Amino acid sequence: MENRIFNFGAGPCTLPLPVLQQAQAELLCLPGTGMSVLEISHRNKKYIEIYESAIRNLRTLLNIPSNYQVLFLQGGATLQFTMVAQNFLRGTGKSAGYFNTGSWGTAAIKEAKKEGPVVTVWNGKESNFNRIPKANEWQMDENFAYLHFTSNETIGGVEWQTEPSAGDVPLVCDSSSDFMARPIDVSKYALIYAGAQKNAAPAGVTIVIIRDDMLAKVPENLPVMLDYKIQADKESAYNTPPVFQIYMFNLVTQWLLNEIGGLSNMYAINQQKANLLYSAIDQSGGFYEGHATSDSRSIMNVTWRMPSEELQDLFAKEAKANGMAELKGHRSVGGMRASIYNAMTVAGCQTLADFMRDFQRRHG
Amino acid sequence: MENRIFNFGAGPCTLPLPVLQQAQAELLCLPGTGMSVLEISHRNKKYIEIYESAIRNLRTLLNIPSNYQVLFLQGGATLQFTMVAQNFLRGTGKSAGYFNTGSWGTAAIKEAKKEGPVVTVWNGKESNFNRIPKANEWQMDENFAYLHFTSNETIGGVEWQTEPSAGDVPLVCDSSSDFMARPIDVSKYALIYAGAQKNAAPAGVTIVIIRDDMLAKVPENLPVMLDYKIQADKESAYNTPPVFQIYMFNLVTQWLLNEIGGLSNMYAINQQKANLLYSAIDQSGGFYEGHATSDSRSIMNVTWRMPSEELQDLFAKEAKANGMAELKGHRSVGGMRASIYNAMTVAGCQTLADFMRDFQRRHG
Repeated sequence: MENRIFNFGAGPCTLPLPVLQQAQAELLCLPGTGMSVLEISHRNKKYIEIYESAIRNLRTLLNIPSNYQVLFLQGGATLQFTMVAQNFLRGTGKSAGYFNTGSWGTAAIKEAKKEGPVVTVWNGKESNFNRIPKANEWQMDENFAYLHFTSNETIGGVEWQTEPSAGDVPLVCDSSSDFMARPIDVSKYALIYAGAQKNAAPAGVTIVIIRDDMLAKVPENLPVMLDYKIQADKESAYNTPPVFQIYMFNLVTQWLLNEIGGLSNMYAINQQKANLLYSAIDQSGGFYEGHATSDSRSIMNVTWRMPSEELQDLFAKEAKANGMAELKGHRSVGGMRASIYNAMTVAGCQTLADFMRDFQRRHG
Repeated sequence: MENRIFNFGAGPCTLPLPVLQQAQAELLCLPGTGMSVLEISHRNKKYIEIYESAIRNLRTLLNIPSNYQVLFLQGGATLQFTMVAQNFLRGTGKSAGYFNTGSWGTAAIKEAKKEGPVVTVWNGKESNFNRIPKANEWQMDENFAYLHFTSNETIGGVEWQTEPSAGDVPLVCDSSSDFMARPIDVSKYALIYAGAQKNAAPAGVTIVIIRDDMLAKVPENLPVMLDYKIQADKESAYNTPPVFQIYMFNLVTQWLLNEIGGLSNMYAINQQKANLLYSAIDQSGGFYEGHATSDSRSIMNVTWRMPSEELQDLFAKEAKANGMAELKGHRSVGGMRASIYNAMTVAGCQTLADFMRDFQRRHG
């Protein structure tokens, strides 16, 4: 067994070590079944136990009211871009409001426009997607079919500190990259979706939290796999769900509950981790230049630039040699990025912050 | 570690033990990466190696011509029902021809009808889906947008012995439950799709083999996740693919190539396994009554009934106590079913055949 490194990748990304260890220990034989979780039927009662445990844990972690359903779907946030618009925009005669705070907001809008009219209520493109809008910078329209926002932009590294006010309009959130990173008030949302591969599970499942009144709005005759109502009625098993990812999600939620102690604790740890890196940036005298404005900084994805491409390449190379991987920014924007999701440890962030200071001493 | 049992489940189902063992051994640390395959980015060069190896292996196993692309998608065969019809039926002004040979044929037709006109060229419902049509029982129409069939019906246990002749009309196949069970002539097909959770990998990935001329027909402005052309152009990584399932598929194809010796060998083994069970049925004097007619029998799913529900329940219970699980038929049709996919061993089938004879001696 080789040594594991600190993986700062933006997703798929590091998972909690105790979760990986349990999955490994029982990979040939899930206790009580005589088979691997990779081989178990989604109609088997042991799977049903896992599925129900996962939902119960998530309900506890996020304090989800009883008039919301939890779904496990496939296709990532990108298929949700389509599903949200096909279920709740197309054919309504209304427009939907979308915030464009970065690459994912842009992608959500692009897919929604294929289904119906979209109003971009705020666009961060002019400022190179380096911030979240203030409350007085955008206009609500009470006739929107829904209002959509991306709670954290993985590529730019900007994050809503609190959700926008939608009034009586259904609030829809792409929470892929900060899902379960902190407590939220689910009752403010009509629909939350999250690709799992940041904080929740390995890539291959998408978690959806949807309010019952939204399910009642789903139109007739949608493709069955794109129909939230059918997926809810069939408890996410209309066809074969991604059993392994749901099993892993259950283990991750157990870890959050039992080892971390819930999302308030997780949030405090995440703030501590982010502060380690933002302090290294802020104290660098401009050697590390943060991308996000200070009031919009993400606690999940810390992004910065350095004085030259050469220094950035050298930084990534030296970091790798010191056991810290995946620190280059997204290929579409360049720069540097440290993704520090729930499973990244304080020790990992401290190691990186120390390295940043050391690197600056040597090359600054 | 408990003993593993013989798992005759219809999917998710048993996987090759050497594959599970390798996955377990490297679950904390994929060699050369310092991280788990569950944590690795789909942009990492190690993932690209796995992805390219999986495709290379499949091309070798099925002798896929160079004018076909291999895709890894999500959503199972059920999302393919929609994708096939949205990409190649909707808006063409044509009808599509569908064989209805069982539950999956029925489901494919239901989804296709949401997108355009469907002609059911043959319907096995009157005969309780116990057989595949003969060549003179259905009519081809050269104007079909495509001709669709289900190569193996998991629930009824009927299987095409060879594909229907579609002439110049594109032939589309749902091969979910006998994919890679035997050699096929890919050049006869325009599109083959298969949910992985029978012969290919754990649930959560769908393999698509598609001819280049079909990609050229994909209409503009489909939702990105439903667009075969975009998925092909982006090498199945427009968004995050199900990395773990693709890794497992690579291991399964390695096992087929290196331990089994290719699909001709696999087919011989599958025939041997199926013969063990069908012989127990045929030699039972009617105690075990096979569902499929002898010319339509599946080598993947062996289905039969017994003289009473009570005997069937007792059979399943005693079999379970003897290390053979998941032998009840699908809840929609009842009866008994032994699914004997590639990874089920000859020893497993021999054990079941012996048990069937013993059970009959005691209860017949």
